[in-house]
Amino acid sequence: LGKKVLIVYAHQEPRSFNGCLKKVAVETLSKQGCTVTVSDLYAMDFEPRATRNDITGALSNPEVFSYGVEAYEACKKRCLTSDIVDEQKKVQEADLVIFQFPLYWFSVPAILKGWMDRVLCQGFAFDLPGFYDSGFLKGKLALLSITTGGTAEMYTKTGVSGDFKYFLWPLQHGTLHFCGFKVLAPQISFAPETASEEERKQMMASWAQRLETIWKEVPIPCTPPWYFGQ
Amino acid sequence: LGKKVLIVYAHQEPRSFNGCLKKVAVETLSKQGCTVTVSDLYAMDFEPRATRNDITGALSNPEVFSYGVEAYEACKKRCLTSDIVDEQKKVQEADLVIFQFPLYWFSVPAILKGWMDRVLCQGFAFDLPGFYDSGFLKGKLALLSITTGGTAEMYTKTGVSGDFKYFLWPLQHGTLHFCGFKVLAPQISFAPETASEEERKQMMASWAQRLETIWKEVPIPCTPPWYFGQ
Repeated sequence: LGKKVLIVYAHQEPRSFNGCLKKVAVETLSKQGCTVTVSDLYAMDFEPRATRNDITGALSNPEVFSYGVEAYEACKKRCLTSDIVDEQKKVQEADLVIFQFPLYWFSVPAILKGWMDRVLCQGFAFDLPGFYDSGFLKGKLALLSITTGGTAEMYTKTGVSGDFKYFLWPLQHGTLHFCGFKVLAPQISFAPETASEEERKQMMASWAQRLETIWKEVPIPCTPPWYFGQ
Repeated sequence: LGKKVLIVYAHQEPRSFNGCLKKVAVETLSKQGCTVTVSDLYAMDFEPRATRNDITGALSNPEVFSYGVEAYEACKKRCLTSDIVDEQKKVQEADLVIFQFPLYWFSVPAILKGWMDRVLCQGFAFDLPGFYDSGFLKGKLALLSITTGGTAEMYTKTGVSGDFKYFLWPLQHGTLHFCGFKVLAPQISFAPETASEEERKQMMASWAQRLETIWKEVPIPCTPPWYFGQ
């Protein structure tokens, strides 16, 4: 009730299965009275490259360019380019950030990786110290909603691609947990392209149904020994 | 002797530690008589976004755009955009591909993720079936040369960031092994920014020294149960 949700959405085609999952999330959460904002990265032609252009005005070291150092300084001096600041404001206001994307190479598409590289900079999302449980985005929730090409069987411990938890590690622990987010269980829609129409409807319905009670969910543990079952 | 090496390099600053590691690799391998090609992604302003622009001419399904489907068709019909084809030719000719980059969020920078997303398309790097050990790039070697912000202690099994093998999984298994590459042990230069000048020189020297005998190395096993020590 009155919660704010940001959906960071990375698919080129509104009529895709990803597009439908995004639409269902907007509708279901809005009906609950949530305020939902969508960052439609391809429609925005979002810039993925981390370059000098991200810093407006003078560099702190013009001789040898270090993106991390300059972005940190620019963040403190409010000299980051406006497309980054706009996204940071959306994150800042959100209680929950949902990432909706197709799995590309066991990870996010480059356009979404660029969002992570550029938006979640030092000074905004974390500091050193000030990461993992003390990351600056603590108190917020994050959830990865992913479609895959491979089937659920491929993504098991003994399957050819290994447990899906393995490929989630850099995203859930290395990125989201690092910034202080509490991570909700991932929503993985396996192989919608080879599924039947009935199966796709089922995947869509289970996402909508889950979102009805999303605020009652308990975050998953996200630390190394648990994570790999060791 | 007469071997061909492609270095895919993703750093904004030639005078950076990454730039130096790249330079040392070019020099050391050239001296051995190798032909070395560098794809300097930031200098090329390489496009990371996977979009409709990657396909020249008509789409096979203009109603609902699927990047994977269209890139596959365009690859077969030789209708991929020239920046992709140029990179594919470099990969095709290489015996060894070295990726030189700073770790961004437990992974590659977005510009390099975009290289993977766009260059390693179905029809070129793999097919279904035709992946993992039968990926189309079988017979080639790949090596990740990475610099980190965090220290070596952080990237251990009981460290805050977990074993570095965990974050390498999506890259070494999910991407390189999927395409058929045999993967050489990663070269990880931990925390060069906080290291002393002496330590940096040492990291540089050990990379140069390793490259002297790189062709004698045996690839690492890259399958799920071994990988996570289970």
